[in-house]
Amino acid sequence: MRSVVAIYVENNFGVLTRVAGLFMRKGFNIDTLSVGETEDPRYSRITVVFDGDEYGRGFLIKQVGKLHEVKKIKLMETDNNIEREHMLVKVRNTTESRAELKSAADLYHASIVDFNPDVICVEVSGEPKIMEEFLNKMKPLGIVEMCRSGIICIDCAGNIFDAV
Amino acid sequence: MRSVVAIYVENNFGVLTRVAGLFMRKGFNIDTLSVGETEDPRYSRITVVFDGDEYGRGFLIKQVGKLHEVKKIKLMETDNNIEREHMLVKVRNTTESRAELKSAADLYHASIVDFNPDVICVEVSGEPKIMEEFLNKMKPLGIVEMCRSGIICIDCAGNIFDAV
Repeated sequence: MRSVVAIYVENNFGVLTRVAGLFMRKGFNIDTLSVGETEDPRYSRITVVFDGDEYGRGFLIKQVGKLHEVKKIKLMETDNNIEREHMLVKVRNTTESRAELKSAADLYHASIVDFNPDVICVEVSGEPKIMEEFLNKMKPLGIVEMCRSGIICIDCAGNIFDAV
Repeated sequence: MRSVVAIYVENNFGVLTRVAGLFMRKGFNIDTLSVGETEDPRYSRITVVFDGDEYGRGFLIKQVGKLHEVKKIKLMETDNNIEREHMLVKVRNTTESRAELKSAADLYHASIVDFNPDVICVEVSGEPKIMEEFLNKMKPLGIVEMCRSGIICIDCAGNIFDAV
């Protein structure tokens, strides 16, 4: 079962290691993780996408919430969320790939950010499912390299401070 | 000294803990970190932005490169890189903030992704410096909550597999 949690943590030294280590010790594999600054410079926000059963998930969230640097942790329910991912993708530069890339870029609102005789680098962002679709279009063109941000997620209805 | 490294790792259990733990033990504080899938399902790519002196940095990169799950590690030099960050920002919904937000959204190519009588949620992506500028415009409107992807980075001239 795929789950997304948002974790609000103090910017203490090594806090990321402690949070990621707890996921590991409880047997949950992290699919994507992003850490960024927040509106308050004392805190960072970690977004983790992971896989695991519902019972274990509840237990894990309680355990993470007990770490003394963790101010808030919230399980992001799928109904009210906005999820986004940002990607930089390099594909081979050939006559065919240029034409294909152009039409995919129009469709997915992607932008070409760099090109040289060998590769074209394209930037795109959107819902995770749409990003997978875009990548499926890119695969036949020959993906040379890519960098994905991992998923970020915000709750439309409430905010993280509503979390218990 | 701000540095960005791209790390190509096997999807082993707990690899993120080992990588982040090494940064911690060597005394480097992680500013932002993103983990995402790559073009090869066996590997993930970790982008870390951290602060530290040049000598220590070289030593750290060597140490991280020695972890058995780490296939490649590359220090991203600033000249040839494309850096991006994606943000979801919620600000208070008032008559003034709506007008301000509208003009900032036009300028920074941001999109309003949700709004209700209390808050407006806006999505924006771009170069890290431009994102800081955008946030400075948002602060006076009252940021309720935000989620940032951390920085992702790709090298225009080469690719991570060129790394030694």
